[in-house]
Amino acid sequence: MLNNNIKELLKNSKKIALVGHIMPDGDTTGSCLALAYALESLGKDVFLFCQDDIPDNLCFLEGCEKFNNELTPDNKYFDLIFALDCSDPERLGIFKKLLELNEQTINIDHHVSNTEFASLNWVDPNAAATCELIYELIESLNIHIDINIANALYTGISTDTGNFSYSNTTSKTHSIAAQLLTLGVKPEEISNNLYRNNSLERVKLIARVIDTIELYKHGQISTIEITKDMLTKVGADEKESSGMVGYAKDIKGVELALLFKEQEDGQIKVSMRSKNIIDCNKLANIFGGGGHARAAGCTINSSLYDAKIIVLEEAKKLF
Amino acid sequence: MLNNNIKELLKNSKKIALVGHIMPDGDTTGSCLALAYALESLGKDVFLFCQDDIPDNLCFLEGCEKFNNELTPDNKYFDLIFALDCSDPERLGIFKKLLELNEQTINIDHHVSNTEFASLNWVDPNAAATCELIYELIESLNIHIDINIANALYTGISTDTGNFSYSNTTSKTHSIAAQLLTLGVKPEEISNNLYRNNSLERVKLIARVIDTIELYKHGQISTIEITKDMLTKVGADEKESSGMVGYAKDIKGVELALLFKEQEDGQIKVSMRSKNIIDCNKLANIFGGGGHARAAGCTINSSLYDAKIIVLEEAKKLF
Repeated sequence: MLNNNIKELLKNSKKIALVGHIMPDGDTTGSCLALAYALESLGKDVFLFCQDDIPDNLCFLEGCEKFNNELTPDNKYFDLIFALDCSDPERLGIFKKLLELNEQTINIDHHVSNTEFASLNWVDPNAAATCELIYELIESLNIHIDINIANALYTGISTDTGNFSYSNTTSKTHSIAAQLLTLGVKPEEISNNLYRNNSLERVKLIARVIDTIELYKHGQISTIEITKDMLTKVGADEKESSGMVGYAKDIKGVELALLFKEQEDGQIKVSMRSKNIIDCNKLANIFGGGGHARAAGCTINSSLYDAKIIVLEEAKKLF
Repeated sequence: MLNNNIKELLKNSKKIALVGHIMPDGDTTGSCLALAYALESLGKDVFLFCQDDIPDNLCFLEGCEKFNNELTPDNKYFDLIFALDCSDPERLGIFKKLLELNEQTINIDHHVSNTEFASLNWVDPNAAATCELIYELIESLNIHIDINIANALYTGISTDTGNFSYSNTTSKTHSIAAQLLTLGVKPEEISNNLYRNNSLERVKLIARVIDTIELYKHGQISTIEITKDMLTKVGADEKESSGMVGYAKDIKGVELALLFKEQEDGQIKVSMRSKNIIDCNKLANIFGGGGHARAAGCTINSSLYDAKIIVLEEAKKLF
C-alpha cells in the first residue's frame, strides 16, 4: 500500500516542503494546510510553498499566511518534498526547481492527466479532491484531525465538488464530510466564506455580464461576455470576474455555454462548458486550447466580436 | 420507538393518503414520493395529495404527476393519513379536511414549531429535512430503496439544506447522502434539475434585480428590489422571481439583506435574511409579519419607496 511507503519516507524526514499549484484553489490550499498541521503534530519542520497568492475567499483558513512564494537560498534543500494537487511539474511554477534539487519527492493528486513526475506517485482519479487522499493519509498515520485540519480538508472537498454537486462527488466524499462534521466543521460558516462573500463590485459586474447572454442553435448554445470596459465601469478587478460562465450554462435547454472575456493584452479568452454531450476539449483544440469534455478553454487573438463569430461557427457544427 | 407504532398502524392499513404542504418544496414533495413508492412496494394503495402544483424544477422526479389537488367524494376516507413536512394543519391547505374525516393520522416533520396535530406525531427538529426521517422509516421497515425513492429523498435533503451548505446540515445528513449515492443517485443530474435550469427570462430578471442593490449602515444592510415593471420588461412571471434575496445577502460585510417586492395587488412583500446576529423575526414582527431569526417576512401596504424607508429605519435600530 502506498501509504506505507509514505510512512516509511516520513519516518526518516525532518525538514519537509509542501508545494501547492500555481493559481491556487481550495483543494491545493486545503491539502497543503491539512497535511502541514498533521506533519507538525508529528514534530516535523514543515514549509509551505505556493507561487501565487492564496485567493481572498480562502484566507479564513488558519495558516494561509504561512505560504512562501519565493525560493530563498536557505530553503532549497529538504528531506522530503510533497507536491499536492499538481498534475505536472509546470503546475508547481517556480517551485518546480525543488523537484530538481531534492531526491525524495512525493506526488499526491487526483487529476487523470497526472504525469507521475515524483519519486513516489499516488494518483487516484476516482478521488473527488486531493483532500480526500490527504484525509486518508492522515487517518492511516493515526494523526488526530483537529478543527484546523478538518476545515482545510472540508474546504478542498467542497470547492472541487461544487459543494457536493458535481459528478465527481461520490459516496466516499459524503462519508468523509460526515466524519469532518463530527470533528467540528460548520458547513454554513465555510460556505459563507467560500461562496457568499462577494464584493459589491462583483455583484454589480454579474448584473452587467448576465445582460450580455444570447442564445443560439435553438437555445442549445449560450454566449456571455466580459469586457474590460465592464470591469472599469463597476470598479471590479480581473479576479472578481471568475465563475461567470455558470450563469450562461445554468439555463434550461442550454447544452454548451461560451464565455468570451477580453484580456488585459486585448486577446480574447474563451471558456467553454457543456452539460452532457458536447466535447469542449475538441472545440478548444480547434483554436489551440484544451481541457476536459465538460470544461475547456482557449485564447484567440482577435476582437471579441470576431472571436464570437468563429467559435460559434465551429460550435454549431458539433450539434 | 415511534417507528414501531407506525409499523403497527401500517400493518392494519390498506388505503393510505400522503399529504404534502401548500406551496410545496423539495422536502415535502420528496417525502411524499419516497414514502409512496415504499408503501406501494408493501402492497398498499397510496394516494398523494397536495393543494398547489409541484414546482417545475421538481417535475423531473418520477411520479410527480400522481399528486391530486382536489378532494373528491370517493377519496375522503382512508385507513391512514400521513402529513409530511407540515408544521400545522393549515399547511395541508384544503386537505386539512382529511384530518377531520379520518381517525388514524400520522404527522412526520422536522419543524420546531410543529403543533403535534395528529394522532401519532414524529417531530424531530434535529433532522435537516423530513426526508431524513422518511429515510429512517423506510430503512426500519426493511424496504428496498430503489432509485426513485433514493432520488426523492436526496432531493428533499438537498433543497432543505441548500445542498449541504446550511447550518442544519449534520454528519447524519452526509451519512444518508453517502448511502443514497451508493444506491444510484447522480448528484450532478439532480443539481442540474434543481438549481441549473433557469429560464432566459429569469436570468435577465436577475441582472435587473441585482442592479437595484444598495448598501446602508456602513455596508451592513443591503436592499434589493423587484418591481412588476421589471417582470414585464423581461417577460418573466412571478414564480421566476424567487430566491433573489440571496444576491443581496451574499455580499461581504452584509449582515442583513432586505428584499422589497411589488405584489400583484400593489402591496410590498418584504423578505428579510440575516447572516449571524440580527433577529429577522423581531424586525418582521414590527410590521405584522414573522418567521425565524435568520429568515422572516412581512407585507406592507404602501409604495415600494415608502416601504423601504420605514423598514430601513427600524432595521438600523437593531445594529
